[in-house]
Amino acid sequence: MTTLTAKDNLPKDHPVYGLKTPREVRSLIRKGEWDFYTKGLAMGYTQANLVVLPEEDAFEFLVFCQRNSKPCPVIDVTDVGSPEPAYTAPGADLRTDLPRYRVFRNGEIVDEPTNITDYWRDDLVAFLLGCSLTFEGALLEAGVPIRTLEMGIGTCDFVTSVRCNPSGKFHGPMVMSMRPMTPAQAVRATQVTTRFSATHGAPMHIGDPSAIGIEDINDPTFGSAVEIKEGEVPVFWACGITPQTVALESKVEFMITHKPGHMFITDISDAEVALF
Amino acid sequence: MTTLTAKDNLPKDHPVYGLKTPREVRSLIRKGEWDFYTKGLAMGYTQANLVVLPEEDAFEFLVFCQRNSKPCPVIDVTDVGSPEPAYTAPGADLRTDLPRYRVFRNGEIVDEPTNITDYWRDDLVAFLLGCSLTFEGALLEAGVPIRTLEMGIGTCDFVTSVRCNPSGKFHGPMVMSMRPMTPAQAVRATQVTTRFSATHGAPMHIGDPSAIGIEDINDPTFGSAVEIKEGEVPVFWACGITPQTVALESKVEFMITHKPGHMFITDISDAEVALF
Repeated sequence: MTTLTAKDNLPKDHPVYGLKTPREVRSLIRKGEWDFYTKGLAMGYTQANLVVLPEEDAFEFLVFCQRNSKPCPVIDVTDVGSPEPAYTAPGADLRTDLPRYRVFRNGEIVDEPTNITDYWRDDLVAFLLGCSLTFEGALLEAGVPIRTLEMGIGTCDFVTSVRCNPSGKFHGPMVMSMRPMTPAQAVRATQVTTRFSATHGAPMHIGDPSAIGIEDINDPTFGSAVEIKEGEVPVFWACGITPQTVALESKVEFMITHKPGHMFITDISDAEVALF
Repeated sequence: MTTLTAKDNLPKDHPVYGLKTPREVRSLIRKGEWDFYTKGLAMGYTQANLVVLPEEDAFEFLVFCQRNSKPCPVIDVTDVGSPEPAYTAPGADLRTDLPRYRVFRNGEIVDEPTNITDYWRDDLVAFLLGCSLTFEGALLEAGVPIRTLEMGIGTCDFVTSVRCNPSGKFHGPMVMSMRPMTPAQAVRATQVTTRFSATHGAPMHIGDPSAIGIEDINDPTFGSAVEIKEGEVPVFWACGITPQTVALESKVEFMITHKPGHMFITDISDAEVALF
């Protein structure tokens, strides 16, 4: 249950790919007609990681995000008890508008439902964190290859030996996504993603995987291995799955997240979320 | 009590100006030997706005900062009850290391002490917010004039008609600092300050003061008027005094801040705080 594997059976001719606006896609997801990856949907709009916590844990978690802004860049926080992300997608409902969720209890994944209506409580707060899908479009435009896209793979993410700064009960390792490219492209990618501080920003690491505790670059923790071609180096960005590994290590009593790759699609364009 | 006026009697030959490190300056302030502006002290190190609140208000305030990241860019949050900003100045004490404080009760300023040792409680949380003094050095290096420095004025800040996004009990108008410059310099200043998102980032407004509710550009709410020369336009940045106007309007039960201009000096260099 803890590994995201490539879904080769994605219904590529599904009408969801013809929908242009986030609202249309969310409506279809809300009706239960799409429970797959959100990559490639409503292109040009910012997708987000979800974290839901009881109010009593909300402050410590928000401080955790402040202390770890590369993996956990907060783009919206709901009012206590409200499932509506009023600043990034007014009218949306975070209980139903993601394709699939994960429910954590005491540090274990206990459910992966397609909605969390039955789990919702008046004391819950939802956090949306930026997602690196946002800057992948900008990287492609800058001539930087996105190998996962080329290979049709959802993601290639590693739990690293880099420790997050703790806050109260929240502690754990940082997850990073990896993209292979030439050193010159790594420079360009650093420039391009620097503007996207709300969606993980500049890389955390370039080169030697063992320097960040990765033993086998061909064995990612989440997703599938991507090919590193001759002359390319692996480049690592902080990843929004980090709160999920934190939930596991910290044995958080109750937390709901998205299932990796099954993101919330906001009404904010990728250009809008770039540094302003 | 609500207006910051230029102190013409700043002891310019005081040994504090010879101190190089933030730790040395903080030590002198802690001993009560400096209760003036911090502008020009420990040059090259990031100064910060202070907000102290009871734990019960801390989450709503941190969400307020997330929803208003231009005026309220959070650079450190202490653990509950701890006066030590462990990430930006380990070993410092926020109860004693600022030259002067402001104590708010029910939306009124009730005290401006030189330390808050007697006010400190185990349930208090301290927030440090970035300060535009940080990017003024970068602006000078880029050839952009800082008129307040030229004129020997502490600051030139306005309460505007721009409303902050509310969070729970916290609501109020945004305060902005104003710097006059040519349109070409305004473009350069936008580029330079974009990298300083942790210290208010790019301008909020360029030009017509009435568009943001300012009736008389020569009558700032805080500080003193600065000369706008022929061919110059006023350029406005979000200001870290904003939480203080929010405390007044929201009638916050209990909040402690720095007195405007009397900042906390962190151990983080101005270069370090720039976008990474």
